[in-house]
Amino acid sequence: MEEVGTFRSAVIRAGASAYLEKRVDSTLCRLTLEEKVGQMMEVVIDVVGTTNAQGLFEIDSNKLDSLFSLYKVGSLLNAPGTVAPTARQWESYMAKIQEASMRILGIPCIFGLDQNHGSTYIQGGTLFPQNINVAATFNRDLARRMAEATAYETRAVSVPWTYSPTVDLGRDPRWSRMYENFGEDCLLNAVMGREMVLGFQGENPDSIDRWHVGTSLKHYLGYGVPFSGKDRTPAYIAPAELREKHFAPFLAAINAGALSVMVNSASVNGMPVHANRELLTTWLKEETGWDGVVITDWADINNLFTREMVAHDKKDALQMAINAGIDMIMEPYNADACDLIVQLVKEGRIPESRIDDAARRVLRMKYRLGLFKCPVQKFKDYPKFGDKEFAALAVETAEQGMVLLKNVGDVLPVAKGKRLLVTGPNANRMRCLNGGWSYTWQGHRTDEFASQYNTIYEALADKFGKDNVKLCQGVTYSEKGKYYEEDAHDIASAVAAAQQADIIVACIGENSYCESPGNLSDLNLSFSQKKLVEALAATGKPLVLILNEGRPRLLADIEPMVDAVVDIMLPGNYGGDALANLLAGDANFSGKLPFTYPSEINSLVNYDFKRSQESKTMAGAYDYNARVTQQWSFGYGKSYTTFEYSRLCVDKTVFHADDTLTVSVDVTNTGQREGMESVLLYSSDLVASMVPDGRRLRDFVKVKLQPGETRTVSFHLKASDLAFVGYDGRWRLEPGDFVFMTGDRQLRVTLE
Amino acid sequence: MEEVGTFRSAVIRAGASAYLEKRVDSTLCRLTLEEKVGQMMEVVIDVVGTTNAQGLFEIDSNKLDSLFSLYKVGSLLNAPGTVAPTARQWESYMAKIQEASMRILGIPCIFGLDQNHGSTYIQGGTLFPQNINVAATFNRDLARRMAEATAYETRAVSVPWTYSPTVDLGRDPRWSRMYENFGEDCLLNAVMGREMVLGFQGENPDSIDRWHVGTSLKHYLGYGVPFSGKDRTPAYIAPAELREKHFAPFLAAINAGALSVMVNSASVNGMPVHANRELLTTWLKEETGWDGVVITDWADINNLFTREMVAHDKKDALQMAINAGIDMIMEPYNADACDLIVQLVKEGRIPESRIDDAARRVLRMKYRLGLFKCPVQKFKDYPKFGDKEFAALAVETAEQGMVLLKNVGDVLPVAKGKRLLVTGPNANRMRCLNGGWSYTWQGHRTDEFASQYNTIYEALADKFGKDNVKLCQGVTYSEKGKYYEEDAHDIASAVAAAQQADIIVACIGENSYCESPGNLSDLNLSFSQKKLVEALAATGKPLVLILNEGRPRLLADIEPMVDAVVDIMLPGNYGGDALANLLAGDANFSGKLPFTYPSEINSLVNYDFKRSQESKTMAGAYDYNARVTQQWSFGYGKSYTTFEYSRLCVDKTVFHADDTLTVSVDVTNTGQREGMESVLLYSSDLVASMVPDGRRLRDFVKVKLQPGETRTVSFHLKASDLAFVGYDGRWRLEPGDFVFMTGDRQLRVTLE
Repeated sequence: MEEVGTFRSAVIRAGASAYLEKRVDSTLCRLTLEEKVGQMMEVVIDVVGTTNAQGLFEIDSNKLDSLFSLYKVGSLLNAPGTVAPTARQWESYMAKIQEASMRILGIPCIFGLDQNHGSTYIQGGTLFPQNINVAATFNRDLARRMAEATAYETRAVSVPWTYSPTVDLGRDPRWSRMYENFGEDCLLNAVMGREMVLGFQGENPDSIDRWHVGTSLKHYLGYGVPFSGKDRTPAYIAPAELREKHFAPFLAAINAGALSVMVNSASVNGMPVHANRELLTTWLKEETGWDGVVITDWADINNLFTREMVAHDKKDALQMAINAGIDMIMEPYNADACDLIVQLVKEGRIPESRIDDAARRVLRMKYRLGLFKCPVQKFKDYPKFGDKEFAALAVETAEQGMVLLKNVGDVLPVAKGKRLLVTGPNANRMRCLNGGWSYTWQGHRTDEFASQYNTIYEALADKFGKDNVKLCQGVTYSEKGKYYEEDAHDIASAVAAAQQADIIVACIGENSYCESPGNLSDLNLSFSQKKLVEALAATGKPLVLILNEGRPRLLADIEPMVDAVVDIMLPGNYGGDALANLLAGDANFSGKLPFTYPSEINSLVNYDFKRSQESKTMAGAYDYNARVTQQWSFGYGKSYTTFEYSRLCVDKTVFHADDTLTVSVDVTNTGQREGMESVLLYSSDLVASMVPDGRRLRDFVKVKLQPGETRTVSFHLKASDLAFVGYDGRWRLEPGDFVFMTGDRQLRVTLE
Repeated sequence: MEEVGTFRSAVIRAGASAYLEKRVDSTLCRLTLEEKVGQMMEVVIDVVGTTNAQGLFEIDSNKLDSLFSLYKVGSLLNAPGTVAPTARQWESYMAKIQEASMRILGIPCIFGLDQNHGSTYIQGGTLFPQNINVAATFNRDLARRMAEATAYETRAVSVPWTYSPTVDLGRDPRWSRMYENFGEDCLLNAVMGREMVLGFQGENPDSIDRWHVGTSLKHYLGYGVPFSGKDRTPAYIAPAELREKHFAPFLAAINAGALSVMVNSASVNGMPVHANRELLTTWLKEETGWDGVVITDWADINNLFTREMVAHDKKDALQMAINAGIDMIMEPYNADACDLIVQLVKEGRIPESRIDDAARRVLRMKYRLGLFKCPVQKFKDYPKFGDKEFAALAVETAEQGMVLLKNVGDVLPVAKGKRLLVTGPNANRMRCLNGGWSYTWQGHRTDEFASQYNTIYEALADKFGKDNVKLCQGVTYSEKGKYYEEDAHDIASAVAAAQQADIIVACIGENSYCESPGNLSDLNLSFSQKKLVEALAATGKPLVLILNEGRPRLLADIEPMVDAVVDIMLPGNYGGDALANLLAGDANFSGKLPFTYPSEINSLVNYDFKRSQESKTMAGAYDYNARVTQQWSFGYGKSYTTFEYSRLCVDKTVFHADDTLTVSVDVTNTGQREGMESVLLYSSDLVASMVPDGRRLRDFVKVKLQPGETRTVSFHLKASDLAFVGYDGRWRLEPGDFVFMTGDRQLRVTLE
């Protein structure tokens, strides 16, 4: 648990080794201004290739050479056409790119890919659950091993850099990128983000081996709470909250060595983050001593003069962004910005020292990744690519991330031999299981690329026997059009099919989407899907809802009609199998919600709401009746067994600012089955100089317990873990009383 | 138009006259600490009386004397039991209160009432439309005259102080207090707030005559944008927005002389406003030189330790609030806080100088209101109380504030002789027409107190003849229970009744509510009301929707089914008559929406959204498709005639920071009827150092035009009116291009 609290400390690393710096300097000093600027530029792979007669992308050597010769470009990104090539294709692309880069520039190119939940952009690679599911596991080890596996598969095709992990706070359930993050809590994002950085990069960020890749944290800063809920739109965040909550995961992850950070495309408090020197330079670089690379998101320099209107033209925008602290520019379709940057330096509008600093950061990253020594790997040296070991990990992660939210009368697990109706639009689609960032950006071609994996229906048919499992969907998503469009429904057929079943498994939720195409205007579950559930409930058959969705779609009106609810979120290619294991009782549920599942459309509040959000009736004529409503709370999740908490204690009930507290609790499996329990430790600051959050997650640990077994779980918290950012924007640790809470236990301590 | 822009300037008044200050000092210097503290205390009238056998409230002389003797209390408030007494009852209460106060303390008591849309708390007084309707008139003169009338009626019963006007920004349509403010725009709130202050107080705030009352602006600061939409819950506001938009109306109104300010009960950016010295003292008093009184809202000192958890106990809370700048404490049920404050001073935790300052501010207010000279008036000297002159003004204001949003095929006006079905839950209730703050806090007893006024049905029956107008409601509100509860509906009867009608007038919306009991969890119009409209639309009869509601309830799904829509909001006791005049064509519509009427539940955005809220498809693989949707936009409203804008011009297309621009436009009545047009002038800052708002209202004027008549409307804008608050929290006026827009015209100017 040593990482807890470190996300708060400011200065984190002593900087790269002297040996590394010497090599960076020796390269930098031989570069012209144009070459240094070129290192700051990143374009998309499509600009150096063409699509051949067979529809396959091929590198065009002339285009490639001219990109390096004319613009000295230092970086490329993305899958061609945003569609996953095979590993062998990648091997060929990367060999050509690095050969040309070394031959023309004498510097390796750094290639980046959004490997967002495993191998997004390599056919045959492993697709794990999305980050929201990883968060639901509350299992650090799974996060790290999943990143290790993804790093392995990414480096197997000679791609040394991924735009991952995403550690925005998914605090707005309307947001289309909720599922890419580790839920709504800052500690959970910090811890999981840190694990993934260590998994991707390994323990030594100065010397990353050929089994690992560099990370780019996304999306600095304050991206997850757009005012209107729409992606890439303005956010307004209280200054203290920005620093205390939104900054925390980034700090934890650069603490763990993250090589780079990608910037939020939108504005926070009226300032585009790409133009915000305070956030990009003061907070991220100067206060921490961090020596990594700050990269724009897709074409975001252009946003400064086309959407945000803080710059007059591209040149103005480049000046603004680079002076604010941008080190690399994801252009992505042409590199002519290079000329403008050179002009800006010559006109004195960007100091050459800023260019030197940016180029040095890029070169440092390339050295750290060993690209000078070995720009490409051989795919044949990576035998575990797409291997069973990774598949087993993906199944395990999927199982541990599924959340049992309701199980009236123990309708689950389902006994073998029962007849199942599998219904709903999500019942038979690999696209739905994976969500966005799966083979393509929007994940809309997943059924074509992932046909070898099991949909929910296929997995249940495998598990319960084909004859016992019938598929009749009732509602289906439209193959064409927007993600939320549905075909004309046929609910009557599903109802008829239910007559022959012992139990109904209704798979509902959302089709795949990501980013702004995933925007919505109504968080309620679709009307047709609600109607389907209503009609199925009317049959009187036991009804299990499977929620397969990237964000919590509201279903308060239909929830009372069903017997069981499982939120599988976006569990990836092995999600169907994992769900079948769980429904059959071959595995046990242990996931907990990493976000608040709302119940009312105009009551979207996070778990750490302030007490003044909720209130009791006041004396006298006036009363306050603001309510906090939720369908299921953050941290909620059931199991096939039961756990009891007892003997919560602390080694010091009175403590001081330099103390470390040890908080322990006994957890007993009081049920009949083996199970895992994520033990979540919360604290509550009773009185503070600024309105304290009602409760805050301070640490967590997951334990496996046999029936009847008791384990003592201990947490080691520094007093400073209880600090907060005050109204003045500074961290404060204030004397007073705190309450620790875990399970149904609580105890009070006093900081003197 | 001289007031436009003045809401930006910092120092506003030179302070009270030397003569006044001398009198304040001479009183203050003879007071003990306990007496000074007593001046800071306000309790509710109920504590000095009892309810007699007839259920009437009576002052209890013993209780009254002991309140003044024991606690030296300086102020009382509220109607007994929060139910309006008669004027004669008030006369008696106030005589007793002032007699005792003068006899025991030698200082008059200051009594305050929420006279929120006219005489809220005096039976027989005039109830005007709510402020949201006043904003929709875009008519300064009506705002001022309405406040003058209310001041007259309030002073008629010897109450010298009103907690009005409310100038929060109603920027969240979910909020239960939307209707109490002048819409979502800061300039509109500033202008209307200023007019009302001048109407209530007159032109000289140092010497307010017996026809006027003191004002208390509500609710400083940032109250109108609670994060969850619930009343009195935390708000998070970008610092620049807080200063530029939320502060503006308060600054404009204290500029106009407002004697006092009431504080927001909730927290902004994590700090309860009652404990925020920066907002209460630095911004409000020190930067402006304002010498008025800052008063808490209801029991809000207690919130600091019961809800907000920034204080340990009441004494701690008092220390915090008074040191932050609170001058008067609305306790409201007991005055024992006085003892705690005295202790705090004696313990050195509150400087006595702070107490002196607060008491001086209270005494100054009492002198300004002439209370020392004449603590009570005689009701018989106020013959215009509840008079026809005020009724006529109320009708006119109601007419000008109703907004015609749709009128397909000129279904309106309705010819005499037509047969009308009047239906819907709002068709026959005075409670609905008035909303909250009407005779009682929640406005739930209005039909009992306002039976002499016309409901919509009654007014239409008067206008079109009883035989031609049939009432059949289909849906009704439940008399008991929460404001949103409805009885079992009888839609079939309404549909049957529609068969006999030529046109259907469906009156839908909300029942009365205010503050936190008016919270909602779904902004959609109620299900039953939508069903009613759907069923009526299916009859094929012309269908007119009357929206009678305190906030814009969503109706995107039913709007296409109807022929006409009129948003009457909360038009008060004369709203039925005004609507009948408009529907019959005896008056013409001229109201415009002072807020954005949303269409999608998860797309709640104000008119001044930033361009980056909305966006075009981008080149390449990624696109942005964030949309801004709305049912009807801010400033929208139709008329029975038509207007054409032409010849928009400006006297200087290139201007400098000290210049005043004159922008003119010709407006022509191109239709067949007399009509009024509110000409709204917007500007757009094309490029700025912080993301500029897409457009901003800069001025407005309302003109009356005969058919064929053209008027040249001129606006005089200071260059500084185009300034904004930058990311650093300071006002900035930046060179560059601006576009002025009015009607369908626009022109570009350049600040050098």
